[in-house]
Formats: sequence, C-alpha cells, structure tokens
Amino acid sequence: MFKPFIHSNFLLQNSIAEQLYHETAKKLPVIDYHNHLYPAYLASNHRFDNITQLWIIPDQYKHRAMRLNGIPEQGITGSASDKQKFLNWAHTFPKTLGNPLYHWSSLELSRIFGINNLLHPGNAEEIWETCNALLQTEGFSSIELLRKFQVELLCTSDDLLADLQPHISTSHLHGVQVLPSLRGDSMIEIDRPGFEEWLAELSQQSKVAIDSLEAYQEAIRIRLDAFELAGCRFADHALPPGFAFESTPDWMANSLFQKQLSDDALTGAESISLQSYLLVFLGKEYAARSMALQLHVGAQRETSARLLGLVGGAGGFASIGKGADIASIARFLDTLEQETLLPRVVLYTLNPADNEAFASLTGSFTEDGVAGKVQFGPAWWYNDHYSGLRKQLTDLASYGLLHHFIGMTTDSRSFLSFSRHEYFRRVFCNLVGEWVEQGHLPSDITMLQSLITAVCYGNIKNWTSNTTTIHVPERK
Amino acid sequence: MFKPFIHSNFLLQNSIAEQLYHETAKKLPVIDYHNHLYPAYLASNHRFDNITQLWIIPDQYKHRAMRLNGIPEQGITGSASDKQKFLNWAHTFPKTLGNPLYHWSSLELSRIFGINNLLHPGNAEEIWETCNALLQTEGFSSIELLRKFQVELLCTSDDLLADLQPHISTSHLHGVQVLPSLRGDSMIEIDRPGFEEWLAELSQQSKVAIDSLEAYQEAIRIRLDAFELAGCRFADHALPPGFAFESTPDWMANSLFQKQLSDDALTGAESISLQSYLLVFLGKEYAARSMALQLHVGAQRETSARLLGLVGGAGGFASIGKGADIASIARFLDTLEQETLLPRVVLYTLNPADNEAFASLTGSFTEDGVAGKVQFGPAWWYNDHYSGLRKQLTDLASYGLLHHFIGMTTDSRSFLSFSRHEYFRRVFCNLVGEWVEQGHLPSDITMLQSLITAVCYGNIKNWTSNTTTIHVPERK
Amino acid sequence: MFKPFIHSNFLLQNSIAEQLYHETAKKLPVIDYHNHLYPAYLASNHRFDNITQLWIIPDQYKHRAMRLNGIPEQGITGSASDKQKFLNWAHTFPKTLGNPLYHWSSLELSRIFGINNLLHPGNAEEIWETCNALLQTEGFSSIELLRKFQVELLCTSDDLLADLQPHISTSHLHGVQVLPSLRGDSMIEIDRPGFEEWLAELSQQSKVAIDSLEAYQEAIRIRLDAFELAGCRFADHALPPGFAFESTPDWMANSLFQKQLSDDALTGAESISLQSYLLVFLGKEYAARSMALQLHVGAQRETSARLLGLVGGAGGFASIGKGADIASIARFLDTLEQETLLPRVVLYTLNPADNEAFASLTGSFTEDGVAGKVQFGPAWWYNDHYSGLRKQLTDLASYGLLHHFIGMTTDSRSFLSFSRHEYFRRVFCNLVGEWVEQGHLPSDITMLQSLITAVCYGNIKNWTSNTTTIHVPERK
Repeated sequence: MFKPFIHSNFLLQNSIAEQLYHETAKKLPVIDYHNHLYPAYLASNHRFDNITQLWIIPDQYKHRAMRLNGIPEQGITGSASDKQKFLNWAHTFPKTLGNPLYHWSSLELSRIFGINNLLHPGNAEEIWETCNALLQTEGFSSIELLRKFQVELLCTSDDLLADLQPHISTSHLHGVQVLPSLRGDSMIEIDRPGFEEWLAELSQQSKVAIDSLEAYQEAIRIRLDAFELAGCRFADHALPPGFAFESTPDWMANSLFQKQLSDDALTGAESISLQSYLLVFLGKEYAARSMALQLHVGAQRETSARLLGLVGGAGGFASIGKGADIASIARFLDTLEQETLLPRVVLYTLNPADNEAFASLTGSFTEDGVAGKVQFGPAWWYNDHYSGLRKQLTDLASYGLLHHFIGMTTDSRSFLSFSRHEYFRRVFCNLVGEWVEQGHLPSDITMLQSLITAVCYGNIKNWTSNTTTIHVPERK
Repeated sequence: MFKPFIHSNFLLQNSIAEQLYHETAKKLPVIDYHNHLYPAYLASNHRFDNITQLWIIPDQYKHRAMRLNGIPEQGITGSASDKQKFLNWAHTFPKTLGNPLYHWSSLELSRIFGINNLLHPGNAEEIWETCNALLQTEGFSSIELLRKFQVELLCTSDDLLADLQPHISTSHLHGVQVLPSLRGDSMIEIDRPGFEEWLAELSQQSKVAIDSLEAYQEAIRIRLDAFELAGCRFADHALPPGFAFESTPDWMANSLFQKQLSDDALTGAESISLQSYLLVFLGKEYAARSMALQLHVGAQRETSARLLGLVGGAGGFASIGKGADIASIARFLDTLEQETLLPRVVLYTLNPADNEAFASLTGSFTEDGVAGKVQFGPAWWYNDHYSGLRKQLTDLASYGLLHHFIGMTTDSRSFLSFSRHEYFRRVFCNLVGEWVEQGHLPSDITMLQSLITAVCYGNIKNWTSNTTTIHVPERK
Repeated sequence: MFKPFIHSNFLLQNSIAEQLYHETAKKLPVIDYHNHLYPAYLASNHRFDNITQLWIIPDQYKHRAMRLNGIPEQGITGSASDKQKFLNWAHTFPKTLGNPLYHWSSLELSRIFGINNLLHPGNAEEIWETCNALLQTEGFSSIELLRKFQVELLCTSDDLLADLQPHISTSHLHGVQVLPSLRGDSMIEIDRPGFEEWLAELSQQSKVAIDSLEAYQEAIRIRLDAFELAGCRFADHALPPGFAFESTPDWMANSLFQKQLSDDALTGAESISLQSYLLVFLGKEYAARSMALQLHVGAQRETSARLLGLVGGAGGFASIGKGADIASIARFLDTLEQETLLPRVVLYTLNPADNEAFASLTGSFTEDGVAGKVQFGPAWWYNDHYSGLRKQLTDLASYGLLHHFIGMTTDSRSFLSFSRHEYFRRVFCNLVGEWVEQGHLPSDITMLQSLITAVCYGNIKNWTSNTTTIHVPERK
C-alpha cells in the first residue's frame, strides 16, 4: 500500500506525540504575530493566477535554493515565464533533501492541493495544471487559504507611513483579524538613502514641520497613535550583527539630529549614539502603548552586491552574521527598564550560537506580575528547520520557562507559509513526547496538553488581547 | 501501580547505564570542589527553621524562575513570609516543565524528604508542613544533609580576607573535610567601589603597609600562605565576556598601581594592563603553592540595574555574555607557562558556544608527567541542565580526554544542590551507555566502570590530595 | 562469540544505513582533495620502517592526546626510540575512550593490519611486532596503502615554490593521480620572518626582479601557471580568527608593498590592507585558472610558546579560535564577485559555533549555471569526530543543499588517515538512514543512493575534472 511522505503522523515518533498533536495541537487556531503578507491582498481577497504567483514568487527560501542549484537568476526572479519558474523549482525540489523546503513544500502541496506525490521534473507539468485549475475554484482566494490554515489573527509588518486601511477592511469584511505591526527601521536608519523623502512624507502625514529632534519625535508619536488605534500590538527593529548601544544625552542627540538634517554625514560613532537615543525613545513609546518590541538581531544583509542589484535588498541572499554583543542589548533593555518603560520584548537571533545567551537574557529583565515578559522568540528565518526548531525549544526550556513561550510565527511573505505552524506543532509535540518517553517529563496528559495549548495558542492569545500591565504615563 | 516521577532508573535509558549507575556511580563519595556554602553554617552544624530557609532563600535558580513566572520580587527575595515564598515557589514549579529545576527540585524532595508527589499549589501546604517537621528531627542538620549526599570533601569560595577558622573547625568537629578556596576577584578589581577599605583591611591582616605594588604583592602572599596552610587547593577568577589580556612590564604596573592608590582613575586600557599584570602575578603564586586556577569566563553580570538595586550583585539576574576572546586567554596561559609557573587550570565558560574552543584549548597547554593539567570544567551555572551536561561531556570527549576529567561541582549556595552530583552521574552513565549501545564504545564493563570512577571521584580525589608535580621556586 | 569492536556494521544503526553503506558508499573510490602527504614519499613509493613511522610520527592528533595524557614530550616528538613512542601511544590509547582517535585507530589497525584486538599496554609489544613484520611485506608501500583505501585521486598542499615533479611522477609511475594544490599563505604573510628569503627564491624561480608590487604579482602568476599546468585545482588560505578585510586601492597597495620591501614594518592596519589586496588579486587569478579557493578560518595558532619551540609551528597545539567576522568574509567574496572573478570557494571553520553562519553564506554567493559554487566544507581538523561530522552534515542540509556537497577530505599528513573517508561514509549513511526512519526523508532507495553517491564521490569527481564555467579573461 502506498504510504505518502506526508501522512497523519508525519514527524510524530511516539504515541504521546501523536495524542498531543491530534487531540490538542492541530485543533488550535493560528495566531501569526509577525509576517510580511501584503495587506492589500488581504483586503481585496486576492486570487492568484497560478501556483508560481502563490508559491514561488513570494518565497525567498525557494529563490535561494534555486540559486544554490545553479538555476540562472532570470529563471528565478527574472523575466522567465511563471511556468518556467515553476519547472525550475520542480528541478530544484529533489535536490533539497534534508532541507526544510522539502518538508514545507510537500506539506503545502498535500494540505492545500491534495497532492501527495513528491514534486519532480517528471510530474511538474501535471502538478502545474492541477494547482492552477484549483486556484480558479472557490476556496482558493487569499482569505480562504487563511481559513484552511485556521488563521484567527495575523500581524503584518508595516512602515510608520503605511496605509492602515487594508487591515481594518480585512477584519471587517472577512472576519479574519488583521492587525498592523510596526516595522521601525525607517525611523532609526537616518543616514540611509531616501531618508529625506521619507521624512518629508512623515511631515506631511503628521502635519508637523520637522526641523528638530523634538519635532521628529512628535511626528512619530502622531503616527504611533494611528497604529495604536488600528490595534497594533507589536513593533519590530532589525539590529545588525555589530549592533552597539551607547547611552546618549538629549543635548547630544539634538545636535546630531541637526547635523543629519543639514546633510552633514554622521561619523560611525555619532550614528550609533543617535540611533541608540532613538531606540530608547521608541522603546518607551511602545511601552506606553502596550506594544511589544521585537528585536531581530544578527542578519548579515550586506553580502552580494550582484544580487542586491538584481533582486533588491530583501532578495533572500542575506546570511547569518557574527554573534551579538550581548552587553549592548542588555544596556539597551536596562536603559528602558530604569525609566520603568520597558515594553514586552521578543528577542530573535539569526545566529543560533547566540541561542543560549538570548534565552538566558529573558531572566535578567522581568516585571512583577508579568509572566514571560521578555521572550526568547521562535527560531528565526533560516533557523526554522527541524533541528533549529528543536534547539530553540530546548534552549528556551533549559534557560527559561517554556510554559510562557508565545510560540511560532512565520515571518513570511507567502500565504502558504502558515504550514509552518503545523510543522512547528508537530516538532513541538514530538519533542515533548520524547521527553516523556525518556522520563524527563511526567506522563500526565492533562499537564502536557496544557503546555501544548499555552505555547501554540494561549500565550499569544493573551498577548494579542487587550490586557496590559504596563504603566502608561501622562503625555506632556 | 503508581510509578513516581523520580524512580530508581530516572534518566537511565539502557541496561548498561543502569549497571554503571547502580553498581558504580551511586556508590562513590562526593567531592564538591567549588561551591558557595556558608562556612559558618558548616562549623555550627546549622539547622534550618523551615524548607524556605533551606531550599528557596539560597537558590537563585528558583528566584529567577519565579521572576520569569511573574511573581513579585517582594514574594521572592523581599519581605514576604517564608511560607508565602514557599507557596510562590509551589505556584511556579509546575511552570518549570522542561527546565532542570523540575528535575532537581523533584530529586531533592524525594531524596531528602521522601516526598514523591510533584509539588503543586494543591499540595503545597502539606509539603510545607511535612518538610518543616522533618527539619526539626535528627538527620537534618547541615552536616547530616551533607552525609545524606555522601559528601566527603568540599571547597567553599572565600575572599582573601575571609576567616578560615570555620573550615578547620568543621573538618575537625564533624569529619567532613571542608577546605577554603580562594575567590580572587577582589585582588584584581582594583577600581571597584570599596577597594580602598578592602585594602586597609588587607594591610591590617597582613601587617604590611601597602604603599606600592610590591607591598601589595607581599601582603597578598601572606594571606595566600594562610590559605595554603588551611589546605586551599583552588583559586578562582571570574573573567568578563570581554576579557582582554595585555602583557605588562613591571615598571608600568608599578606606575599604574601608584596612580590607582592616588585615587586617579585608570583608563580602560590601563585597567586591563594592571589587571593582566596582577593575574600573572597571582597565577604564578598559585602554581608555587600547587593551587589550581579556576577561570569562570563569560558571565554578563551587568544587566538589570533594577534587580541589582533590589537583590544585590549576586541575585541571579546575570546573563550569558558574548563569546570569549580565545587569543587573550591563550596569551594569559602562555605567559605563565613561559615562566614555567602555569598552575593546573580549570576553564569554565558560561557561553556554551565557546565549549569547543575551551575544550580544544586544553590540548594547547600541557606538562610532561601531568595528565589532564588544563581541564575543560563541567557545564557551569545556567548550563548544568540535561542537554548542557551532555554537551559538555561530548565536547570534552571529542576534543580532549574524558578519562582525565575532574567531574561535577555544584557552584551553589544551597545545601540541597548536591543532588546535582546524582543528576550528573545519571546523565553521564546514560550517555556512556548510549555510546555503547550505538557501538561507539566497547561493551567492556570493567573499562567503563573505570571511566565512571575516574570522572566521578578518582580524578578529583587525586587533585585534592597533596600530590604535586609543580616546581616550587625559592621565595625571595 | 567474540564480536570485534570494529565490525561490518560499525556505526550503522539501522537497515537503510547498512544498505546504503554496503551497497553504495563503501564501493566508491576516494578522492581526497586536501591533505598534507609528502609528495616525495608518493613518487618514491616510500616504505615505512615501522608502525611508529607510519602511524605516530605524522599524526598530530596522537601527539596531542599523548600530551593530554601526561606523556613527556621527549617520548612523543623527541629523542625517544620509535618503539618507546609506540608504547607511549599504547598507554594513551585506552584513555581516548570517547575521542575519535579511539575509532580511527581501531579502524586503521583492523583495516590495514587485520588486528581486531583493541590496543593496550598489555598487547603493545605483540602489535608492534606484527605491524612491523607486515610493513616489510608486499602491499604496504605508500602506493599500496593508498590502493587499500581505494584512493583514486589526491591533492597535496604545496607552497608556491614547491617542486611539482613528484606529483607528475607519481601519477605517471603508479597510476594514482596526485595533483598539487596551492598553499597560498606564504604569498600573503609578507611580514613574517623569512619572507625576504622566500621572495628571493621566487625571484629566481620566476626570473622576475621583484622590486614592485606589479613585479611580485607577475612572478606569482608565472608560478601559478606552473601549478595550473601540473593540474592544480585548489588553492588554500588560512585566515586567522580575527581576519579582517578592507578594500584597498592599487596605489595604496603599491605604496605598502614598497614600505615592506624597504624593511619598514607595516602597522597592523597597513598589514590588513595589503593582505586584503593580495587576497583579492589571488582570488581573481584562481578564478581565471578555474582553481577553487579554500578558506580555512579560525585556527588559534598562537598558543604555547613552549610547544612552538619544541615541536615547531605545525605541532598540533593550535586551538579553536573565536568566531569569525562574517562581514569581512562576505566583503572579500563580494569584492571578487563584483569583478565577476569569484572562483569556486570552500569555506571551512574551525569553530563549529560558526557552522550555521558559514553554511548560510553559501546561499549569498551563487552563479548562474553553477550548482554548489560556494561550499560549506567538511568538518575541519579537530571537528571531524562523530558528532562534529553529524553537525556539519545537518547544518549544511538545513541551510543549504546537501546534494551538492563535495564531501570529506582528510587534511592529514598520515597515510592511514584515509580511514576517515570510511568513517565519514558510515556516519553519513547512518544519519541518512536515521532521517528516513524518522520520516524526514522518503524511503526511496534509488533517490538516497543518488544522494550518497553525489556526496561521497560524484560531486568532487566533477570538481576535479576539467570542466569549468568560469570566464577566463585575457592576460595582459
């Protein structure tokens, strides 16, 4: 009898894991608190012309794998036809044995399209036709795809100046709650090309003439209020591998901001000082609005200038950077805490060699009455493979309290990536089952189900509900 | 039939592991060569009023877990009653599933108090009463607790100016050998607040007027002689994550010491130079006295100023710092070796990403006739969980010679932490058994028992006996 | 019945692993693309006087283990007799339980000498006699040893000025293909002692008067042509743990080279600039000749001055250094790529905490039409133990495409180290079998055999055949 690669007990290696997954984990709704879905697609309930548009175009993991497989860029992100790109992916897929793409892709074809044969060049034409036909039917619009994945709530990643109407519309029209979350980098990277234009747009939106740091901060606050009003619960900052934090007094920050405004280039040290100041300012603003602060640390984004030119800054060619300066991160959090305006924090590292340091840092900043205030976030980006997920869970458990973990998020641009919640849940249930088999956890199914529920749904449900214990100071 | 969580084969997953543990490991006495027990408690054979005093107050791991669980600080280290603190811990314990606290705490209740039910808020009152009643009976004094754990010898951690009488008294009165070990940081951290007072006290104890570096060194030597006389076999220095070592000539060190004495603040670079000089001076003094040098590298102690204010510097809110500068550590050891005064060394890292580098460094500094001269120390502090212990053992075996490992030490302030020797032995026996099952080690029980005995007892027994191969130079 | 430690299913823990190993992996020839065999021994088909000459003298791993075991240096690399050194190793071997030496040594005695008893002091005399007698017989010359290991092709590591005749002779006389590969460090380390003499020799060999950077480059090109003619397919550079890369303009490099020629010491920053310039120059020259560039990153070579004095720079007392500056490595590769002269690259790290960063970097630099252009190299040096090999394979699979991996190389000075190919293949087959058992890979034996063949032989076969996709520019 044919046993498909993706079967009901995929990744589940013991009976407790099976029970935990089937009776508990798989029934829980999905809250995806950080991703890069395109809000306009959600509001318009976008339909995809073909499987390449849905599955390949928005998935940088596949682009990367195709490059590693020698596929010319033209056939990945370039001018090749959608069908050719699909065939290129079909050619690449069998070479991904051992990579998470092999699992995710198979899960996605199985769960969404009912295809249980493994993709290869020989069946690519047929799968192309099958999927495209299905995409024209009921049940394959953006919103219906979310429903297939049991998505209850999702948070997209949005610039300070983004239009927040699509989020509101989606929630109202389609009953799937879509909240904005704030991608904060554009406020901090003040010496990037294009900052001037961005600042002009901020000035226009906020109706504040930005001629000083104080005015800049006021303009930001006005937009933050708009995010708060739209239900934003998370902000996010990307910190580079060499992130350094320096405490910076107001007068110095003012002066540096003026220097920047007058087009006088900041030195490296000055840039660190001003950025540190702005991070502290923003951290406190987030705390005051009960927004959690996500820190994504350690991506080496400057790698290939060739690929930067061909596919742009978010083209999937970043690498894992060197380990973080933990002292700087601690100083940053401490500075906020000293003003009793440390928001909830989620720490992500792209370099898993930093897992233990990050996991332990969650025990250094705590708050009376708040369980799990600083989180060691789920295995980020390239690390969300089988052993990366296990390592993050094991490290979190070993150095912190797994029970308070807010669980998985996709961080993806693709509507099919929600399969990674299933993947995470299977890995998690299997790991817990293993621990029980090895006698590391008691074989108490009620207790274990409570752990599974908390991590896969309950904790993030609490975070995204409107409860807060953060003190909100008077606005001056 | 009820099978308790802690049973005779807890963590032992194969028959060789069972045999190695039950026939060999569990029968061996315990030598705990680095901990923070309070010597006066030992000398007076202190009795504990209640389980909180014994089990919670001295255990920062539990404080940390309670904070992560949202327990207000007042109910952890603050003014709450001992009973309330116990109830807070009972509330936290079930949330530690997956953390080593779950194992240790269960082991301790089982082994010492015969309680095999898992702690939870529902049975907390009963367990509180049971334990407290037992603490009033014979067999629960400090010394009796040590006997329950088969402790033969322990080394506490003591400042240069500490009173060493309690160590001597304990050994004489109670037959458990208690040796001082030297916590060396106060000699090195010359720019800390309070150094002046400490120096005055050193001057008084040593009867040396400390007006020069030479006088400082002489005063230190006098106290080192006292430690040697009291049987001290270990010194210990904590090196921060950014530890840098610079070779420093005498004249420069003299001049920097004078600058410090005259209350003129040293620059960062000057401080590194003087501290490097003092470390070399001390390393040689230790070598001359056959004291081993422990280096605890990589704790990020500066984290939360809030918790520092509330609970003091040793409050369990430190974090794992960034990876070490291996070149600096190598330069330090090389400097000592070049003067043929490199003592035995134990290298600990708080950042397990440095495990392999540290384990390999043990092969760079060796001495004719001395097996295992530089040790990769056991999984330190936050790393002494199940997978951390396995990783340290595997790394040591992979890069060095496991057979010469001096094994586990608790580094703890708690009388109940000796359960971690049982924990270590179970993990170790299980790992060795696994290796045999996988065909990585021969199934030769005599050979395996010899390995177990060496690591759990024999090697550290040799280290703490008065054999030495270090050349002792003339004192000028 | 006596079951020897090394048996046919050594390390193979499941039936798929057994099938993959016995039906596929073990039948494949060996291509060892980076080692330190002595070319003259190959050309002369050298015979070894005794087992110490063959097995101990050229194996720094054993020297290291003996030092860790307290054997005096005199009895390791010093004046002791070969027999005494063998006895010292026999005394050390049983202490290596858990270290890869235990496996390799047992494999080597079994495979080459048919000795299945584990070495110990009690049987050392007998094994000494048996091996030495065999070494006098047919089948134990250098070339015959290679044949026992199924070696088809090997690449030694050779200085720019090395005599390449032995390589050619060996291939012609003995039918085992021996190619030179270029050890490039002497071209880069321009401020080392002895550079002047080396430069004079280069001048003589190339017949170029080296009075400028341009002349230096021309002289190098002449020797590179000789390497190319001799079939060289690989160059190699060792980058220290602190490797920094700075883009350096021609005029600055010229001026720095003149400064160096005039015996004026370069500052640290100047040295980095000039070395960066030379690395770029060489990288492009390699690309133009279709030589792959190996980067061995992270060895902490400066450790014990004592051992440096006793046994020289390559004495096996190096350590694993701190993690690499990934940004510098990326800048270096990017600089080459921007001139479309990035050669194939193999990235090795000595610090396994950098595994994930290195594995991910392979996805940042790719080339249309070239699969697996930048490789995450096999577990290097101290990391080629059981768990190190598994980790490298798992990391490569998780972050890249395992299918394009060029597989194992020994990097060894010893003729017996080819047993590590068997070791690697067993570990690899076992891991793949495990993945299948856990449902991570499909149980499709044809697909799995194709993976095994590609990694153990097919990919490196392609690399070392004369196919190239690199554009070769005109020589001016």
